[in-house]
Amino acid sequence: MGTLSVFLDVPLAPSTDIPLDAYKADPSSLKVCLGHADTDEVWIPPVVKRILLQIPEDPTLNHEYLPELGILEFTTAAMKLVIGKESRALLDNRVMAAGIQTIGGTGAVWTGAEFLHRWYKPSNCTPTTVLLAEHHLENLGCIFQVAGFTDIRTYRYWNPERLTVDTVSFLMELQSAPKGSIVFLHAPEEISLTPKQWKQVSTVMAERHLFPFFDVPAQGLASGNLDRDAWAVRHFVDRGFEILCAQSFSRIFGLYDERIGNLIVVTKNNQTLIKILSQLAKQISVTWLGPTSLGARVISMVLTSPALLYEWKQSLKALVKRIMLVREKLKEKLRILGTPGSWEHLTAQSGVYSFIGLLPSQVEFLAKEKHIYLLSNGQINICSINAKNLDYVAQSIHEAIMSTSHQDQSVTVRIYSSPTHVSKSESFY
Amino acid sequence: MGTLSVFLDVPLAPSTDIPLDAYKADPSSLKVCLGHADTDEVWIPPVVKRILLQIPEDPTLNHEYLPELGILEFTTAAMKLVIGKESRALLDNRVMAAGIQTIGGTGAVWTGAEFLHRWYKPSNCTPTTVLLAEHHLENLGCIFQVAGFTDIRTYRYWNPERLTVDTVSFLMELQSAPKGSIVFLHAPEEISLTPKQWKQVSTVMAERHLFPFFDVPAQGLASGNLDRDAWAVRHFVDRGFEILCAQSFSRIFGLYDERIGNLIVVTKNNQTLIKILSQLAKQISVTWLGPTSLGARVISMVLTSPALLYEWKQSLKALVKRIMLVREKLKEKLRILGTPGSWEHLTAQSGVYSFIGLLPSQVEFLAKEKHIYLLSNGQINICSINAKNLDYVAQSIHEAIMSTSHQDQSVTVRIYSSPTHVSKSESFY
Repeated sequence: MGTLSVFLDVPLAPSTDIPLDAYKADPSSLKVCLGHADTDEVWIPPVVKRILLQIPEDPTLNHEYLPELGILEFTTAAMKLVIGKESRALLDNRVMAAGIQTIGGTGAVWTGAEFLHRWYKPSNCTPTTVLLAEHHLENLGCIFQVAGFTDIRTYRYWNPERLTVDTVSFLMELQSAPKGSIVFLHAPEEISLTPKQWKQVSTVMAERHLFPFFDVPAQGLASGNLDRDAWAVRHFVDRGFEILCAQSFSRIFGLYDERIGNLIVVTKNNQTLIKILSQLAKQISVTWLGPTSLGARVISMVLTSPALLYEWKQSLKALVKRIMLVREKLKEKLRILGTPGSWEHLTAQSGVYSFIGLLPSQVEFLAKEKHIYLLSNGQINICSINAKNLDYVAQSIHEAIMSTSHQDQSVTVRIYSSPTHVSKSESFY
Repeated sequence: MGTLSVFLDVPLAPSTDIPLDAYKADPSSLKVCLGHADTDEVWIPPVVKRILLQIPEDPTLNHEYLPELGILEFTTAAMKLVIGKESRALLDNRVMAAGIQTIGGTGAVWTGAEFLHRWYKPSNCTPTTVLLAEHHLENLGCIFQVAGFTDIRTYRYWNPERLTVDTVSFLMELQSAPKGSIVFLHAPEEISLTPKQWKQVSTVMAERHLFPFFDVPAQGLASGNLDRDAWAVRHFVDRGFEILCAQSFSRIFGLYDERIGNLIVVTKNNQTLIKILSQLAKQISVTWLGPTSLGARVISMVLTSPALLYEWKQSLKALVKRIMLVREKLKEKLRILGTPGSWEHLTAQSGVYSFIGLLPSQVEFLAKEKHIYLLSNGQINICSINAKNLDYVAQSIHEAIMSTSHQDQSVTVRIYSSPTHVSKSESFY
C-alpha cells in the first residue's frame, strides 16, 4: 500500500460552536458560557423523570424497529399540539395533516429541506429560492445548501440597532422575493411577531405564492401557553396554506439527548398527503432507516393523558416564570449599575434565547477580558445565567458597554448588513 | 389560496418492504413472514435488560445533548471490537482509527457515502464508481445514489444456481473495476468468504487501488465468535488499507429501536484523521445534530466491563446455537419430505439471514398459495422460523419446489443477470 492517505486533501472543517470551544479551553474559574444552559442544572419536568423510570418496567414494550415514519400515536399527538385539535381547516377537510418522527428538530428541517429540493418546483426554469432569517443563516443555510438549494438568501426581521422587530423591512423582502420561494419562519421565537404582523406576512406570502416552512423549536417556552405559541402556524393553516413545520421536543421535555423531532406536513388533500408520506418514508429509509423510540414514547404518553399533560403544562409554566425572573434580575442589575442604554428589550422578549443587544466588539471584550463567551450577534441563552454568576455577568456587560461606548456605532450597520445572497461557490464546508 | 396542491406531481414511492406489506394485508391465520424475526419473541440479552433498568436510576447521567460524534467511550470501544485491541497496524501507528456514533447502521452507511462523495476523488475527470453486492443493490444503491454517486455497479459473489460463493466472478469484477472504485464489502455475512479468499480479494484491491467500505451488521452472529467475524476487516487494516466501516448493534444487542451504529474511519495518520472527523461532525450537524444516548450507554457499559462483556458473549453464543438448530431442523424436515435438491447450504451458511435457494416463481407460489412471504431473491430471516411454524414452512417449501420443478430452470439465469449498471436516469425514487 502507498504511504500517502487518499484523504490528504480533506480540509479541517471550522468548529460548529466557537463560543463553547473557547469556553472549554479557558482555564479560568470565572468563565461563563452564555450560549448554553448551565449543565449542572438541566431542567427536566418531574413527569418525564417518572415516565423514564416506568418505561423499562413495561412488559408490553419491546425493542423492535419502529416504522420509518415513527410511532403514529406520537406523530399524531405532536402534530395536533401545533395545528390544534380544533383546527377549522382540518375539521372542514380543507387541509390534511400528518407528522413524521425525526431525529430531533434538525432531522425535521433536514428531511423537509431534502423533500422540498426533490419535489417542490414552483418554476421549472430557475432554481427555487430559500429565504432564511439573517441570524439563523449559519446553522440553517448549511442544511438547505447540502439538500441541494443554490439560491439561499436572508431576510431580516430583527433590527439590532433598535432592538425590535422590523416588519417593514421583512415585508419588503417578502414582496421582492421570487414567486414560489420557500420562506423559513420561526414561531414562537423570543422576538416573535404579533398576530397583526403575522397577518400582514401571510397576506404577502399568499400574494407572492411563497411556501412557509415553519420552525417550532420550543412551543410553550415563549409565552408559557402552548396555544398562544402556535398562533402563527395555526393562522397559516387556517388561511389554507400548505406548510411544512419542523417541531422539536428537546427543550420543552428536557430530553436533549433523545433527539425527538417531528416534521408536520399540511397539504390540500388526502391523496397528496399519502404520496408525500411515501416519499418521506423512502427518504428516511436511506438516511437513518427509522427513528428511536424512548423519547417518543415518553412524549406520546404525556400528550395523550389529560392528567400527565396538565402536569407537564404546569412544569412548563414554572420554567417560563423562572426565565422571566432571570430577565428581570439582569435588567435590574444593569439599571443599578447605571449601564448606558435601554434594557427594556430583555423583558420585552421572552423565551430561552435572547438578543442581549451587544455589539460584536463588546462580545469580543467579554471573551478577552471577562472569560464570558457568547455568539458574536449577541444572542444568549437566558438559562445560562444563575444565582452564582448573575452579578459577575451584569458587571461584565456593564464594563463591556463602558469600554466601547466611545467607539463609532456604525460598526453595527456593517455587521448587520443587507440581505446576503449565498452563491454556489461560497461553500459552508 | 388556490385549491390545487403544490405537491400535485409527487408520485407514490414504492414500498420499501413488499413481503412485509403483503404479510400485513393477508388475513389468513396461517401467514408467515420469512423476512423478519418473529416479533413475539424478540431476542434481547439478559444483561441488556438489566442495564436498561439501571440507567434511569443513575443520578450521574443527564439528558444534555451529546457531541456530534457521540459518546467517545462508546465509539472507541465499538471501534476496538472490530479492529481488535491488539491490532498490529494500530499499535505500530501505521494506521489511526476512530469511530463516530450514528443513527443505526444505515446512518453509518449514509454518513460514509456522503463523506466519500464529498471528499474521495481518485480521479478528477470521471465520477467515482461504487461496487455493491448484487443482492444488496436495492437497499444500498439508493443510499449511494442519494449521496450523489452516479456510477453504481454490482458485483456478484453469491452463485444462486450453485448456492455457493463465487470468488472467480467476484475477483474478475474487481480486476475490471475502474482504478480507485469504492467497493462495499460485507463481513461477516451468512455467505462469507474464507480467509484465503479474502486475501485474494485484498490483493486485487491493493493492485487496483480500490477503496474498501465494510459493512459489519452483526459481528458475532455468523460464527458465534466476535474475533473470527472481524477477520476480514482486520486483515485489510493490517495490510495498511484505509477503510470506512459501518457497524450496527441492533441485532447483536436486540435494541433495534434505539438505532445504534458506528462509522469507523481508518486512515494513515492522526492529522488526516482529525480533519476527517471535523468534516464528519459538520455533516452530522446538518443531518441530525447529534446521536441518541440510551443505546450507546448500554453498549459502552457492556463493552468496557469484562464481566458484562463475558455475559453478553455467552448470550450471543447461545443465540448462534439456536439459529444453527433451526437451520438443521429445517434441513432435516426437507430431507424427510424428500424435497428435491441439496439443502446442505442451509447449514453450510450461518447467521440470521440465509439464501434459502428458491426461484422467484417458487417464492411467488409461497405467497399466493401458502401465505408465506419472503424476498424474491429467496433470502430469509432464520429467526422467523419457530416451533409453531416449522412444519408448515417446510411442507410449503416442499410443495413450492414440487409445483415448479417441471419448469425451465433457465429462469434463474434470467433473474440473476450479469452486473447491472445503474444509469443516472434510473432513479430509485
